[in-house]
Amino acid sequence: MAPAGSPRAKKGILERLDAGEVVVGDGGFLLTLEKRGYVKAGLWTPEAVVEHPNAVRQLHMEFLRAGSNVMQTFTFSANEDNMESQWEAVNAAACDLAQEVAGKGDALVAGGLCQTSLYKHHKDEDRIKKLFRLQLEVFVRKNVDFLIAEYFEYAEEAVWAVEVLKESGKPVAATMCIGPEGDMHGVTPGECAVKLVKAGASIIGVNCRFGPWTSLKTMRLMKEGLQAAGLKAHLMVQSLVFHMPDCGKGGFVDLPEYPFALEPRVATRWDIQKYAREAYNLGIRYIGGCCGFEPYHIRAIAEELAPERGFLPPASEKHGSWGSGLNMHTKPWIRARARREYWENLLPASGRPFCPSLSKPDV
Amino acid sequence: MAPAGSPRAKKGILERLDAGEVVVGDGGFLLTLEKRGYVKAGLWTPEAVVEHPNAVRQLHMEFLRAGSNVMQTFTFSANEDNMESQWEAVNAAACDLAQEVAGKGDALVAGGLCQTSLYKHHKDEDRIKKLFRLQLEVFVRKNVDFLIAEYFEYAEEAVWAVEVLKESGKPVAATMCIGPEGDMHGVTPGECAVKLVKAGASIIGVNCRFGPWTSLKTMRLMKEGLQAAGLKAHLMVQSLVFHMPDCGKGGFVDLPEYPFALEPRVATRWDIQKYAREAYNLGIRYIGGCCGFEPYHIRAIAEELAPERGFLPPASEKHGSWGSGLNMHTKPWIRARARREYWENLLPASGRPFCPSLSKPDV
Amino acid sequence: MAPAGSPRAKKGILERLDAGEVVVGDGGFLLTLEKRGYVKAGLWTPEAVVEHPNAVRQLHMEFLRAGSNVMQTFTFSANEDNMESQWEAVNAAACDLAQEVAGKGDALVAGGLCQTSLYKHHKDEDRIKKLFRLQLEVFVRKNVDFLIAEYFEYAEEAVWAVEVLKESGKPVAATMCIGPEGDMHGVTPGECAVKLVKAGASIIGVNCRFGPWTSLKTMRLMKEGLQAAGLKAHLMVQSLVFHMPDCGKGGFVDLPEYPFALEPRVATRWDIQKYAREAYNLGIRYIGGCCGFEPYHIRAIAEELAPERGFLPPASEKHGSWGSGLNMHTKPWIRARARREYWENLLPASGRPFCPSLSKPDV
Amino acid sequence: MAPAGSPRAKKGILERLDAGEVVVGDGGFLLTLEKRGYVKAGLWTPEAVVEHPNAVRQLHMEFLRAGSNVMQTFTFSANEDNMESQWEAVNAAACDLAQEVAGKGDALVAGGLCQTSLYKHHKDEDRIKKLFRLQLEVFVRKNVDFLIAEYFEYAEEAVWAVEVLKESGKPVAATMCIGPEGDMHGVTPGECAVKLVKAGASIIGVNCRFGPWTSLKTMRLMKEGLQAAGLKAHLMVQSLVFHMPDCGKGGFVDLPEYPFALEPRVATRWDIQKYAREAYNLGIRYIGGCCGFEPYHIRAIAEELAPERGFLPPASEKHGSWGSGLNMHTKPWIRARARREYWENLLPASGRPFCPSLSKPDV
Repeated sequence: MAPAGSPRAKKGILERLDAGEVVVGDGGFLLTLEKRGYVKAGLWTPEAVVEHPNAVRQLHMEFLRAGSNVMQTFTFSANEDNMESQWEAVNAAACDLAQEVAGKGDALVAGGLCQTSLYKHHKDEDRIKKLFRLQLEVFVRKNVDFLIAEYFEYAEEAVWAVEVLKESGKPVAATMCIGPEGDMHGVTPGECAVKLVKAGASIIGVNCRFGPWTSLKTMRLMKEGLQAAGLKAHLMVQSLVFHMPDCGKGGFVDLPEYPFALEPRVATRWDIQKYAREAYNLGIRYIGGCCGFEPYHIRAIAEELAPERGFLPPASEKHGSWGSGLNMHTKPWIRARARREYWENLLPASGRPFCPSLSKPDV
Repeated sequence: MAPAGSPRAKKGILERLDAGEVVVGDGGFLLTLEKRGYVKAGLWTPEAVVEHPNAVRQLHMEFLRAGSNVMQTFTFSANEDNMESQWEAVNAAACDLAQEVAGKGDALVAGGLCQTSLYKHHKDEDRIKKLFRLQLEVFVRKNVDFLIAEYFEYAEEAVWAVEVLKESGKPVAATMCIGPEGDMHGVTPGECAVKLVKAGASIIGVNCRFGPWTSLKTMRLMKEGLQAAGLKAHLMVQSLVFHMPDCGKGGFVDLPEYPFALEPRVATRWDIQKYAREAYNLGIRYIGGCCGFEPYHIRAIAEELAPERGFLPPASEKHGSWGSGLNMHTKPWIRARARREYWENLLPASGRPFCPSLSKPDV
Repeated sequence: MAPAGSPRAKKGILERLDAGEVVVGDGGFLLTLEKRGYVKAGLWTPEAVVEHPNAVRQLHMEFLRAGSNVMQTFTFSANEDNMESQWEAVNAAACDLAQEVAGKGDALVAGGLCQTSLYKHHKDEDRIKKLFRLQLEVFVRKNVDFLIAEYFEYAEEAVWAVEVLKESGKPVAATMCIGPEGDMHGVTPGECAVKLVKAGASIIGVNCRFGPWTSLKTMRLMKEGLQAAGLKAHLMVQSLVFHMPDCGKGGFVDLPEYPFALEPRVATRWDIQKYAREAYNLGIRYIGGCCGFEPYHIRAIAEELAPERGFLPPASEKHGSWGSGLNMHTKPWIRARARREYWENLLPASGRPFCPSLSKPDV
Repeated sequence: MAPAGSPRAKKGILERLDAGEVVVGDGGFLLTLEKRGYVKAGLWTPEAVVEHPNAVRQLHMEFLRAGSNVMQTFTFSANEDNMESQWEAVNAAACDLAQEVAGKGDALVAGGLCQTSLYKHHKDEDRIKKLFRLQLEVFVRKNVDFLIAEYFEYAEEAVWAVEVLKESGKPVAATMCIGPEGDMHGVTPGECAVKLVKAGASIIGVNCRFGPWTSLKTMRLMKEGLQAAGLKAHLMVQSLVFHMPDCGKGGFVDLPEYPFALEPRVATRWDIQKYAREAYNLGIRYIGGCCGFEPYHIRAIAEELAPERGFLPPASEKHGSWGSGLNMHTKPWIRARARREYWENLLPASGRPFCPSLSKPDV
């Protein structure tokens, strides 16, 4: 299977999904750029797009190369409320970077915004919608291909975001950061899905806060909710990369390891191939990752679904499928690892015998 | 403590070490660039320097920003025997990239070469020295600041490398990829150290193959060997980033998780601070990392030793010491993590209750 | 607190429970006697009462000494269907042994019977009730103090057992071997509790199949079921001794370690003290154990609830509360373990770094 | 293979070992009787032989039934110094109990004594030898079959014990409680073995303090020490039952779980079969257990070595070899466990995901 050739006339997001194509999302910017030295944990704001554009551009490039069909603008939490006067320059620069890189491959640009810090204290619809609208104006001016409202804990605020984004006439995706127990007001995943679709979202799902398996459980509930309501929408999942069977309703932030000791929980590329396959089998066609997803995790999605898509991502030129690159190793016991069954069944050790395998969430 | 100011006249490597300064090495290129999509596992050759120079440049930049004082040319295994006609262009381009980035901060450029695949089968000193000499000629032409012979399993071949590199008149560092049991012929770490110093190396130590704690154990034995022989040299350690109390004499390649399921073993930044402190206390002054060391691990070394050095690395502008960046979090139980005792004592869970904590090496 | 003095006129089981007293049950005979060499795993029949009466008597003695107020006849599965002509002699001898030992302390004798192997295939009420009635006739002839119907997977069969046992006029306890998901027909714990009480059981609860924490969860549901129905009954719990957060609906038999590799899951005495306290706080007053509960586990129940009961069991003469017996040790670091906080907070290691912490049930 | 027939004229211990027979030792009394309620942790004195003879007799019976060829008198630490005036009655009663049970099968009686608490503070040979001689007088009066000096941390004191016991003319076995690092004065296992044999011991080895695999490592060193010295002796091992790869030089008492939270470390019967086989392969012919070895562990030794010995122990009538007793189970997935490969390869889970797999010793 050959790496994908250069695309010419790009199809829109809904065109692709309506045709049954798999759309590979991108991975996480915050944690990855934190490790590279460009984002500060705690604030998690994306001023790197103006301060260190090369670093952001490079990460976009890596995701593109890994097979991503969407370059999300690195505008997470970049609204006026969080970033003051800097907000507009950041949103504009983020659009430029995403567009520059998207132009080098078969990727669309999605303008992304997320929940506000206001909502918890003041459910002031006007003020919150105004914040969304400001970001949207930049996205419209820069003419992004579509829009994503992501990382919403509350269905109500997510609906407001969708309503604002719909004003642009562009396709809107909406993902919440909830688990199977639903949003922070107790709205179930099925009900959230219904509300988002009714508000105008064409694509709905979850991102962040929960690991691959929990996120897929939530997706199943969203899907069932839509079916029960007789509604249709495209499904999208962008989970965390971490193994977290022990996280509670609040997700990863409540685990004692967040955010500086999550290393032992990082999924392998093989774990992510299983996630991609399970997502696909569930009917999800927009499959990507959130915090912790590095380029090779995205490549794992693209490689797992290469038979369905008919092509491999560019970065596969540097990756033998299922470890086949090891078959020329001089040591026979390492050559013996060059096969699918080996990696599929391996139970990787933590190397930390003094540590437990699960933690108790702080709340 | 303020980030380091712009250096003007750079001091050489021996000038720094002779003055008792701490030299922070860089991290691992192979595994990091494999995850970014630019290096192929199995071959592990550095053609990325010509194919994707931006990706390599960016990683150099990240290490520089994290506090590295040395930009090692990305020329691992890039000799004529492994890379055929491509070898010369790769070595030259690697020097250019390292020099370009080193010029932006207080870093020196080190030309690096490693063991050959010939040695195991033909201990042909002339042929092997010729391979070394070819690489050296590029390094001399490009006028790197000093030279590193690294990743040697056999003391004899390492000595040959040092002898060749010494012909240049530049300072030579030599690190072997051995553990406390010594080289593959049974030469003890102490004896290896003595041989390397006698051959002309000014800086000696270990890199790769073993985790932080095992590498420091080997360093202690090297140091004792030198003391017993009445010799003096600067000490250097660049260990793997992985927790591997279970690896055998062959190091990480023999563990079943190598190379595609090592995630759960990755050290946290706090683990690396302990490693840096312990290395310092052992008298080692050239402290860096090998495979798996990402920019934030290098920053951890620079932050741990900031009191001794008097400054923080540039990337600390995006990192609160010991988690202090969390002290403005809205959730009180996350704010409670903004302190040294918390991270120092945390025992991070693997999130993988169906996996063991140790593995058995394949040999 | 002094060990309990010798009782004279024994109060009946309902007298005790009606008065709010704690009744300490006994522990497990099958697994304990299997390890001692007298019961065969697979069949799990109690022919030891006739073949090796000393061994059975000794175990009764140990439970009595540990604080048990009930000597259950060792007649598990000893019905005509399982044991053919031997059944009657076994039931009679078991009563004699239990009565002999009960006479040496403040313990009552309970005749015990369990589910049949017929039920799953032929829900033949008459035939099954006949089997129960045969065992009951022996219990009545031997004049046991009360009766326990235990280890029922199906509420319907348990109800039949209670109906038969009630014919004797003696108090009847009934415990099912179900978890929070209810019986094998999907009858919830709450519904099971209601059915058992309506059938005439004075004491209801669970035994076997699930570990301490899961069993207490089931008990909470049973209690809530009774409350919702406006019914009253005494609550009883006799869980397994094993840590099994990973077992499925079928309980411990489906775990791969059953029955010959459960060792690493055995609760410590401190775990059992927590179980006893939590059971007490839940309003349960008949607290004992099932498979795996050894005499020291029963003693742990009696010691934890000594403040409420006003006395310690005889075996506490050989046990310092919370490790206090270590306070005369010659090594200071062992003396330091002679305190409650130490044992309460200890996270005991498995000593098995190559094993996982959880298993997947076979079904 | 049939259980062993009734023995008539018993062969002595040396007759057996000289003939190359396997002698199965017994298991641990202290921890087992502590769990049954008859021994107090901390003091660990054997007054149970007079206070609760039935309990001690029953445990002897279980070991006999499990296949033990030796009933060790339960006289551990029962010297005048530890037990004051009670000492003589305890030693005498212990001999009576051991002899009574030994008479019911093919077992010999061994009088056992251990190190004194004096030695550490006063290396007073006369006083210590006098303590040994007092115990010996009882053993001689009761005419035990042979003598065991066990649980010695120091070679010197062990030699004194052997010298005293040799005065009786009876065969003497001597086992130290040391690991591969040797005794507390740094005498290596090989040197210890030589000293014991030179002092007159016919059988030498280790007991207690260390787990099966560590004890076998020590035995290998003892064997090599004897070979190097050109000496011959029978080898004997009675290890702990616990998995303790993490214990230090001091053995299990230094682990934080000692003595009340060792449950997760208990070996399965299958582990013990491997221990027995490895001991046999090492040339050891006296194979038993120390603390934590319960009757079923001893049976595992006897079953593993049944092919060599030609018979099974009596308790095997209640045990299907390698789980074969499960082959009539109604659930097919449990029937599937009735085979050797299953149990040999099972990696049993701890059921404790919040606990580590290893601990750090307190010293």
